[in-house]
Amino acid sequence: MPDYKGKLLALKSEAEKHLNQELLPFWLDRCKDTANGGFITHFDKMGEDSGEDEKSMLAQARCVYTFSSAHRAGYGEGKCLEYAKHGVDFLIDKFWDDIHGGFFWTTDRAGQVTIDEKIAYGHSFIIYSFSEYTLASEDPRGLEYAEKCFDLLQKHAVDTFYGGYYEMFRRDWTLKGPGASGGDRKTLDVHMHLMEAFTTLYECSGKEVHRRKLLEIIHVLNQRIVHPKYLTGIPQFTVDWKVAPQIKFDIVWGWDRFTQDGVKADAEDNTSYGHNVEFAWLLMHSLEIADIPFSEYETLIRKQYDHALADGIDWEFGGVYVEGSHAGGVTDREKEFWQNAEMLIALLQACLVFDAEKYLPAYENVHRFVFDKIIDHKVGEWRPLLTRQGEPIWEHMSHSWKVNYHSVRAIIQSIERIRVLIGRL
Amino acid sequence: MPDYKGKLLALKSEAEKHLNQELLPFWLDRCKDTANGGFITHFDKMGEDSGEDEKSMLAQARCVYTFSSAHRAGYGEGKCLEYAKHGVDFLIDKFWDDIHGGFFWTTDRAGQVTIDEKIAYGHSFIIYSFSEYTLASEDPRGLEYAEKCFDLLQKHAVDTFYGGYYEMFRRDWTLKGPGASGGDRKTLDVHMHLMEAFTTLYECSGKEVHRRKLLEIIHVLNQRIVHPKYLTGIPQFTVDWKVAPQIKFDIVWGWDRFTQDGVKADAEDNTSYGHNVEFAWLLMHSLEIADIPFSEYETLIRKQYDHALADGIDWEFGGVYVEGSHAGGVTDREKEFWQNAEMLIALLQACLVFDAEKYLPAYENVHRFVFDKIIDHKVGEWRPLLTRQGEPIWEHMSHSWKVNYHSVRAIIQSIERIRVLIGRL
Repeated sequence: MPDYKGKLLALKSEAEKHLNQELLPFWLDRCKDTANGGFITHFDKMGEDSGEDEKSMLAQARCVYTFSSAHRAGYGEGKCLEYAKHGVDFLIDKFWDDIHGGFFWTTDRAGQVTIDEKIAYGHSFIIYSFSEYTLASEDPRGLEYAEKCFDLLQKHAVDTFYGGYYEMFRRDWTLKGPGASGGDRKTLDVHMHLMEAFTTLYECSGKEVHRRKLLEIIHVLNQRIVHPKYLTGIPQFTVDWKVAPQIKFDIVWGWDRFTQDGVKADAEDNTSYGHNVEFAWLLMHSLEIADIPFSEYETLIRKQYDHALADGIDWEFGGVYVEGSHAGGVTDREKEFWQNAEMLIALLQACLVFDAEKYLPAYENVHRFVFDKIIDHKVGEWRPLLTRQGEPIWEHMSHSWKVNYHSVRAIIQSIERIRVLIGRL
Repeated sequence: MPDYKGKLLALKSEAEKHLNQELLPFWLDRCKDTANGGFITHFDKMGEDSGEDEKSMLAQARCVYTFSSAHRAGYGEGKCLEYAKHGVDFLIDKFWDDIHGGFFWTTDRAGQVTIDEKIAYGHSFIIYSFSEYTLASEDPRGLEYAEKCFDLLQKHAVDTFYGGYYEMFRRDWTLKGPGASGGDRKTLDVHMHLMEAFTTLYECSGKEVHRRKLLEIIHVLNQRIVHPKYLTGIPQFTVDWKVAPQIKFDIVWGWDRFTQDGVKADAEDNTSYGHNVEFAWLLMHSLEIADIPFSEYETLIRKQYDHALADGIDWEFGGVYVEGSHAGGVTDREKEFWQNAEMLIALLQACLVFDAEKYLPAYENVHRFVFDKIIDHKVGEWRPLLTRQGEPIWEHMSHSWKVNYHSVRAIIQSIERIRVLIGRL
């Protein structure tokens, strides 16, 4: 199949060029805050510092992940590792709460705490990025703080009756109130990212307790969080795992579109194509690290792909729709950067595990939309939100909730998978 | 009601005499191991040291509870508190595992570890007794180590998918294997004693997380562990809360009678009258400490009493039967010390909460059996096992799994409740 090989080589080359000449330089050239420590993560559409006096634990941690994983994958000639350490130093110094344990949610640029609450979502990213950092650096502080956060979640966040994790806490880890405070909700988002985090934690520590809790959270995702019929992800639940109307929380880490009342247009029948395939490929990664037979979850994984491919790919204008109904039918046709990023990895993973002939055309579709519409090649990063047709709606290059985790990971993981596909020819 | 008051005064006087002249002196006169630290807990029927070269974490912890609670209740003129501290010193010095955390299961008399496994049941008693110790002494070490054990259980023992707690661990807190190793079982026994432990922990600490986990374990007991129809306690479950055939574990803390195969004669239809009413009165205590309305659990509590009173009291020979069927009918008519001890407290609690005229005759029955048959007044402690008619089967006064927790607590708690009943007249 010479054509096929040529196609893969061209895709890989395009991805490598973007990573080495645009994406990593974008970050390495501007994010290091040498005055205050940590990273600047707010950049406008020109890639200029847009000046927000905010550092979010999430963005700092995601930068640590990005630089650690880039170093592990062989990029940056040591500079990425140096940046990762710079971020770890700042997070431990300014975000760690010496009194109650855990990392604060936001500080100003100087590192003065502005929101002192403890958010499970953020702690999943500390565990993920700090474990990745120790894997990249052998600096024991990464695993040390990842384990501290794991222990804090086990103590404060686990629901020992219904299973799964509570998500929103005050500074002292007392549970926040109901409704918009989020204290009576459980979500796909947090549980999926805890799975991702515990996987890398176990990869780093090799400890039985980390693998055991990983297996348990996979059970939670598989048996509580996916739709009983369609096996697609359901965004929000009450603590006793009843489907909850999807509301906006006081603490956010994205730009989910809600009505003025903070409720989705259809609050009980939304599923995200990007989230579902992100779950699918992350789950396959977890199974590999934890040495669990793929066959146990094959049905679940195939269903995520089938649903996303049936509805989620825009064959007319390219790219991935935002969300739709579990039963079928798209409800939001805009294009967000992160769903497209996760779809890239997921589709190449499906090429490796299932059938390259079936999934490669979809990958090429999304790849083209990402490279032709989403990426701002002149500046170096990805545009956050576009119309269905690919016209930019938002144009800033980074923000506390965007940064570089989805974009850099998508490219590194895609290159790795294309390389394996080529190797098989 | 002059007769009624006279009767209560007589019962109280008999109990006080036993406590002050027999039971506490029995322990204060012989259990302190001045050579090695900690307590001697093996005494034959004459109350002589029977020489077993063993100290169990459970027996040491139960002595700490006994002496702490006796001091809190006003007994011992300081000597009980001194003994409690002596036990705490020894447990921290010899049983605490500096490497993996938690308390070992057994040592020899000198404090050399003989079984290094980590048993949730034992840790529930550390939490209970060490919290009681800090409440009695204001020595912060009690709460400090109680909290360490609570944290270890949250990290290693909680099942974050099915809820509740795993129970049997190796030294490093990895989960033990299935079957007789107990790694795939959950029990009424452990969950009930965790409820008891978290109640006193919360009473001591006032921390939200301790109250939250207490509420969750009450839900586990109420919704997983009691029989769906009869609401009576079911002894053993698989991890997914299916009723499990009642087997004997490698690690034991009592003398439950099993066949040679380690299975109960009727492995799936046993409920213990003593355990059920112990659960009922402990639950009422938990509700009071955690400020939860009694009405939420009134049905459950009444069912435990109704079942125990319908079948569990021997109106011919006195005392409490060992166990029977959930639907009704006694299967084991022998008399064990601890079921009788717990029934004493439970019946007086029912006099206070429900109806003294209904429950006092049952109390008098069990009180008489305890004072006339179970207690060895010459030596000072309680005989462990008797025939239905009250003839001793086993006669030793103490052993690693008997000691003084049930006997001393029963008398202290009974006196307290009789005092309140008298005060109401």
